[in-house]
Amino acid sequence: MTQWVYTFGDGKAEGDASMKNLLGGKGANLAEMNKVGVPVPPGFTVTTEVCTHFYANGKQYPSELKAQVEAAVKNVEDVMGKKFGDAENPLLFSVRSGARVSMPGMMDTVLNLGLNDDTVKALAKASGDERFAYDSYRRFIQMYSDVVLGAEHHDFEHILDGMKTAKGYESDLDLTAEDLKELIAKYKELGVKTGKVFPENPWEQLWGGIGAVFLSWETPRADTYRKLNNIPGDWGTAVNVQAMVFGNAGDDCATGVCFTRDPSTGENVYYGEYLVNAQGEDVVAGIRTPQPMAKDDSGMPSLEEVMPSMYKELCDIRENLEKHYTDMQDMEFTIEHGKLWMLQTRNGKRTAAAALKIAVDMVNEGLISKETAVCRVEPEQLDTLLHPMLDPKAEKNVIAKGLPASPGASVGKAVFSADDAEAWVSKGEKVILVRVETSPEDIGGMHAAEGVVTAKGGMTSHAAVVARGMGTPCVSGSNDIKIDYSKKQFSTTSGSVIKEGDWISLDGAKGEIIEGAMPTVQPELTGNFGKLMAWADELRTMEVRANAETPTDAKQAVDFGAQGIGLCRTEHMFFDAARIQDMRQMILAQDVEGRKAALAKLLPYQREDFTSLFKIMAGLPVTVRLLDPPLHEFLPHTEAEMKELASHIGVSFEFVKERAEALHESNPMLGHRGCRLAVTYPEICEMQTRAIIEAAVEVSKTADKPVVPEIMIPLVGKVKEFDILKEVVDTTAKKVFEETGTTLEYKVGTMIELPRAALTADEIAKGAEFFSFGTNDLTQTTLGMSRDDTGAILEEYRSKGVYVADPFASIDVDGVGQLVEMGCQKGRATRPDIKLGICGEHGGDPASIQFCQKVGLTYVSCSPFRVPIARLAAAQAAVKQAECMAKGGCGCCCDKKAS
Amino acid sequence: MTQWVYTFGDGKAEGDASMKNLLGGKGANLAEMNKVGVPVPPGFTVTTEVCTHFYANGKQYPSELKAQVEAAVKNVEDVMGKKFGDAENPLLFSVRSGARVSMPGMMDTVLNLGLNDDTVKALAKASGDERFAYDSYRRFIQMYSDVVLGAEHHDFEHILDGMKTAKGYESDLDLTAEDLKELIAKYKELGVKTGKVFPENPWEQLWGGIGAVFLSWETPRADTYRKLNNIPGDWGTAVNVQAMVFGNAGDDCATGVCFTRDPSTGENVYYGEYLVNAQGEDVVAGIRTPQPMAKDDSGMPSLEEVMPSMYKELCDIRENLEKHYTDMQDMEFTIEHGKLWMLQTRNGKRTAAAALKIAVDMVNEGLISKETAVCRVEPEQLDTLLHPMLDPKAEKNVIAKGLPASPGASVGKAVFSADDAEAWVSKGEKVILVRVETSPEDIGGMHAAEGVVTAKGGMTSHAAVVARGMGTPCVSGSNDIKIDYSKKQFSTTSGSVIKEGDWISLDGAKGEIIEGAMPTVQPELTGNFGKLMAWADELRTMEVRANAETPTDAKQAVDFGAQGIGLCRTEHMFFDAARIQDMRQMILAQDVEGRKAALAKLLPYQREDFTSLFKIMAGLPVTVRLLDPPLHEFLPHTEAEMKELASHIGVSFEFVKERAEALHESNPMLGHRGCRLAVTYPEICEMQTRAIIEAAVEVSKTADKPVVPEIMIPLVGKVKEFDILKEVVDTTAKKVFEETGTTLEYKVGTMIELPRAALTADEIAKGAEFFSFGTNDLTQTTLGMSRDDTGAILEEYRSKGVYVADPFASIDVDGVGQLVEMGCQKGRATRPDIKLGICGEHGGDPASIQFCQKVGLTYVSCSPFRVPIARLAAAQAAVKQAECMAKGGCGCCCDKKAS
Repeated sequence: MTQWVYTFGDGKAEGDASMKNLLGGKGANLAEMNKVGVPVPPGFTVTTEVCTHFYANGKQYPSELKAQVEAAVKNVEDVMGKKFGDAENPLLFSVRSGARVSMPGMMDTVLNLGLNDDTVKALAKASGDERFAYDSYRRFIQMYSDVVLGAEHHDFEHILDGMKTAKGYESDLDLTAEDLKELIAKYKELGVKTGKVFPENPWEQLWGGIGAVFLSWETPRADTYRKLNNIPGDWGTAVNVQAMVFGNAGDDCATGVCFTRDPSTGENVYYGEYLVNAQGEDVVAGIRTPQPMAKDDSGMPSLEEVMPSMYKELCDIRENLEKHYTDMQDMEFTIEHGKLWMLQTRNGKRTAAAALKIAVDMVNEGLISKETAVCRVEPEQLDTLLHPMLDPKAEKNVIAKGLPASPGASVGKAVFSADDAEAWVSKGEKVILVRVETSPEDIGGMHAAEGVVTAKGGMTSHAAVVARGMGTPCVSGSNDIKIDYSKKQFSTTSGSVIKEGDWISLDGAKGEIIEGAMPTVQPELTGNFGKLMAWADELRTMEVRANAETPTDAKQAVDFGAQGIGLCRTEHMFFDAARIQDMRQMILAQDVEGRKAALAKLLPYQREDFTSLFKIMAGLPVTVRLLDPPLHEFLPHTEAEMKELASHIGVSFEFVKERAEALHESNPMLGHRGCRLAVTYPEICEMQTRAIIEAAVEVSKTADKPVVPEIMIPLVGKVKEFDILKEVVDTTAKKVFEETGTTLEYKVGTMIELPRAALTADEIAKGAEFFSFGTNDLTQTTLGMSRDDTGAILEEYRSKGVYVADPFASIDVDGVGQLVEMGCQKGRATRPDIKLGICGEHGGDPASIQFCQKVGLTYVSCSPFRVPIARLAAAQAAVKQAECMAKGGCGCCCDKKAS
Repeated sequence: MTQWVYTFGDGKAEGDASMKNLLGGKGANLAEMNKVGVPVPPGFTVTTEVCTHFYANGKQYPSELKAQVEAAVKNVEDVMGKKFGDAENPLLFSVRSGARVSMPGMMDTVLNLGLNDDTVKALAKASGDERFAYDSYRRFIQMYSDVVLGAEHHDFEHILDGMKTAKGYESDLDLTAEDLKELIAKYKELGVKTGKVFPENPWEQLWGGIGAVFLSWETPRADTYRKLNNIPGDWGTAVNVQAMVFGNAGDDCATGVCFTRDPSTGENVYYGEYLVNAQGEDVVAGIRTPQPMAKDDSGMPSLEEVMPSMYKELCDIRENLEKHYTDMQDMEFTIEHGKLWMLQTRNGKRTAAAALKIAVDMVNEGLISKETAVCRVEPEQLDTLLHPMLDPKAEKNVIAKGLPASPGASVGKAVFSADDAEAWVSKGEKVILVRVETSPEDIGGMHAAEGVVTAKGGMTSHAAVVARGMGTPCVSGSNDIKIDYSKKQFSTTSGSVIKEGDWISLDGAKGEIIEGAMPTVQPELTGNFGKLMAWADELRTMEVRANAETPTDAKQAVDFGAQGIGLCRTEHMFFDAARIQDMRQMILAQDVEGRKAALAKLLPYQREDFTSLFKIMAGLPVTVRLLDPPLHEFLPHTEAEMKELASHIGVSFEFVKERAEALHESNPMLGHRGCRLAVTYPEICEMQTRAIIEAAVEVSKTADKPVVPEIMIPLVGKVKEFDILKEVVDTTAKKVFEETGTTLEYKVGTMIELPRAALTADEIAKGAEFFSFGTNDLTQTTLGMSRDDTGAILEEYRSKGVYVADPFASIDVDGVGQLVEMGCQKGRATRPDIKLGICGEHGGDPASIQFCQKVGLTYVSCSPFRVPIARLAAAQAAVKQAECMAKGGCGCCCDKKAS
């Protein structure tokens, strides 16, 4: 017979903490606390399997459930020495939900269950407080009618308000016991009138309560919450039925919330709050000011002073539970007539700084291993430690919201064009660039700006990607703002108007646009950060590289612990004002000779770029991607710019205009770009290779360690494209070696960023020495979704449950992941030692990094500011995988199926 | 020991016709002819394996080759009773290439090999014609020096011209034997001077000749030819060394070319031409007028009359070879001093009409089976039978060329906008629409026009795809023309200017734009066509459906034998002038209610569309695809049109403009389209479903057979998209059934046109009852190539050997094909009886149809005019597969690996 009900109480329990899937988080911990001698009001847990059975069988319970619940109630009665429904010494219950993971506020709760016209009298007598008993009863009827019977909440409020008005009361507290009895009578009348009759029978109440909790699992709001938090609907919830204890039954009663360490700082102090003669909600509601647990300087009476023995008992429990769970605990307690009851314990949420300190301290205290410590910090949390923050204590006026595209705080004066941004900054101003959307020619302005705001575009729009790459805060796709370029201003739906030169502030992590110049604070990377990251580096098996092309970014990357450059996008190097005209001349050239002449002018610039990168990276590998974007991205758009260009290179304006139009593409993402540029214009590949190899030769002369250039060919779909360009690279490198009389090692590899490349990776690996999965483009092509055009669709798709996470932010494992895995397997089949990396946005996303570990990548590469996050996430992935493998494998995080 | 040389002659041969891979086509047939008693000059074939060995071993021959060649030469000497290099009775050789398939003119040939200062005298004596002998010698030296020694051809021409000038000759024929001796001396002097000395030693000549043929396999032109014709480079060529016979050694000599049946009409007559005292090239060169084989009305002396016994012998050989090969033969013969020699036989090329007649006749004659007959006609050839043709006898002035985007001939007056096209046609004019490129709003004009010309866009541009779908001739992407819309004219690089109203003609199969109105002829579909197609229908296992949405197209499809509609693109139904404004109102609506109001106006139109389609298709299945393209494709582009729209729907011009801009996408192909439209605006799906089901219910009332609507959801990437829309479809259908009190069967399926859909087809098949592979989009996303933007790149890629065939015209088996195969396997794994079809351009391409047969599709769907081609191609694929399976399978055309 299936056990559907697990009891606990009086130091015994049928379940334990390991049974979260069956008992839910709350139920498992209640059982566990019993086992380790912590006082817990006795009760029982109806398992999540009952929930699953309930929904699978037309909302019917398993036939054995009734008997098992009755037996469990009997057990509670025995422990408490009370009887459910007894008029003399009644046992009351709380009925609470409890899923595997916490879903705060999403599901229903019924308290004081078991009260009726008879038992209320006993409660009045036992508590010596008639008003307390009838108020509890009144609340119970209201809550039960609402939650279980589906009555209209406001009908009850209406009756309550009517009585208060009639009696001239201002507050509920003015109601007397007699008033409450009258109110109860009216509530019951209402129930009869509406057909939602409150049941006096405690057993009927109990089954109603249990059913209400199960039904609340499938309410729209719970469903939405699960979708947003990626919680499967078939997990179901457990129901915890527990003897009621009252912290509000007199002055020898109290209730409180406490943490075993300070959740803000991580300090090893007893942190918490309590109130005498109060219920749990009073502590958090803010009507009464909660008092501290331990004596302090606040002048408020601490529990340590008010109830010293209770405090001592709580201190013992604190130590006991933290040692037992080996993690910082968040606990709730109630003291009823001088008797301490623990109602809940769970791992406590904490700030990034606290997480680091607690993890490091616990290793030093011998409580946990380094592996565990590394897994205790959410990688994403580190982000807040790497960027300056808006002063949390300052007042802020949020005038618009957008997507949190690139974290960090920035403050500057609004400007509305990239040129203006550069001009203002050159005059010593700090600016925030506000655009409808950005394009590659805005790079200069984006570099100059403190922050970027766009009205269009998603988390992976040009603005978002580039800003993250630069570590510049960015709020993208703000539907709240409307930009008027002609007036150089934007207005918000909230009615604000920001003109050029007005101060604004951004919170890139929250997606907030704030009026005025907010003060900022610079967080420090404490010793705990360094220590934990060192452990992470010991534990991880994947390398972490950075996507970087400027010296600033490369230095930042090295500072943040990058082990090389995984993606140097050479096109960013051409947008510099000094170079763009030569680049444009190259694009407008009508024959090979014309292109070669323009390329010859670009060669020294490129060589310098690489020389400085190689110097900074000092022997670490540098993967240089050859020119990738469609050429028309480099051309001017305005007539004025076209005229300037025409005069610069000595052609007619009409010619420039005509060529720009001829180069226009309907779908540039799928057009003349990537290796298609170099296959059709091999001289571009020649120039870039020459610049790379000449720079490497130059730097090698004085460097301590050999320079390791890795030349990466983008957007290969057919192996022949790769072969043609590898030939150009090798021939050019050989020429440079002959000219300089030097030789050095270099690698030639490719991006795998088209489905066709993944599908034929075995062929491509014959020539390619490394693959770098370009999962931005691979996601676009595999899903057939342009990241620039589908921001709004993806939002709607997420709300409809089509995609749980943004597939451009976290890799689509089932779709894109299949291709990545296939690419890895086929690549290794041909070339077992092939280097495999990832350089899309996903390289910095912890969930995606877990996937990268599974498929066995050599490294991940991400923007410099995400390098620490990636280092930590890679360590966690390695720990998780090792643990899983030790247990025999799961086929899921480790690719080894349990046999 | 490997046999590297195969001899033939005197009725014996070591090889036979089945050994084409080893001996090449020519060598295998020479051997075969010996075996069936046809007189062939004796000789031997050096195998293709020698070629492969040659290139794999630094251009060295296998060590055994020398002895084997010497033995083979001895064998020829014995048969001919002559001796190689003998001064009295010398044997001369021809040395010719011969690959598995014919590569005409691509490789080198050396004739008269064995001539030198001694043997030439013997030849003079034997022929009794000194001039003939020395002219042969002179030509041999020149040919040998050019082909084998790599001398400059023009140096020899220079000497020859010098002599003619000096002697005052006008023609080579004026040269006397003495002149030729002098010339030979000068040629040899030149050889000494340039270091390219002509070898007198016949054996040296022979090895030189053999080597030259092998080397010519890898010349750039041969390489290019192979790439264009998809011939693998590792096949290699064989070398055929054969005793020389002379058709030009006197009046009892002759040479000719003949076919066993008429290659133009297919009639069973002896068709051919010959010349007395001539060489092979004289027959084709056109200097002398060749004479007929058989007596006819031409008044020219036929071979039948001139050499009756030779003619009789040739008639016997004709019968013998055609029976033996069971196919129409193309033969070459030479008569030397009254002795007939056959130099070559091969299956003859023929016109489409001839191919049909020969195939049908041969079945009737009991020569071949229906299976063979069906495989004898190139499916693509049928195309010429389905469209009117420009009168081949009329004069034509081609002023520009473009891509042969849609076959057929058309004649009309040039117009430069879709509106003009419609306006002119409504006045009774015939027009050809000339545009830089076309867009969906040009559909009306394209329908009205006789033909379409575009200056931009490839074989699968909008213009090309739509024109092929309509069966309208189209020449796309003509770089030769420059259109000036403002002047309403186009000019060509050849200097012509065509103004609005000027007559032009198109040959869509050749991509020609012709000045003036050419006469056309309407080919008839003869009884042979019907007969062969009936056999094809018996033999094929895949169904053939058509892509059609208009009644005209649907009727055409049924006439051409389509078994249903595989793709009805509903968007084409919205471009009608009467509907487009309502469509636009729907798009511009700002809320659900606004959209529903506009959709309600569109509903009756859609219902009528489907009603007429269901009636025409009379019980055949009709697959209706829900709205697919990005909405902005429907919006007006010009200010005038925007103003008209604004006034029509009662909003401001600015509003229209703003919305049109807001809907603009960077990459519309990857944007808000396909099922994304219906997931975000379910009311569109509701309206379309209602129209389909209401029409089906209506037609069912009076129809003999049940209506079979198949509702197809486009661009699904995640199963959830499908599930959401299937729910909308089912709910709407149920409502209609309730309203009408009728019910009928319908299916809901999806396009598989994104890599993600193929990768997760097992999930999608849980709900989808059919898949239709949309390989146009699947190719775009798998390759990351927009068909609108990469026409020029693909041309260059094909010239560089990256893609052999245009992947948008013929399916990319290794890449896109992998996904299609995966989609089929995964789909069937979930739902074994799932219907699988293809509805991209590839559905009408024979090579792609072969692939569809392999992966086991249920049907292919193509434009109406390609339906007969697809029927024939499907039959051939089935025959080929059945033959292959009978032999144990190959894993290639049949998916069953030989064990």
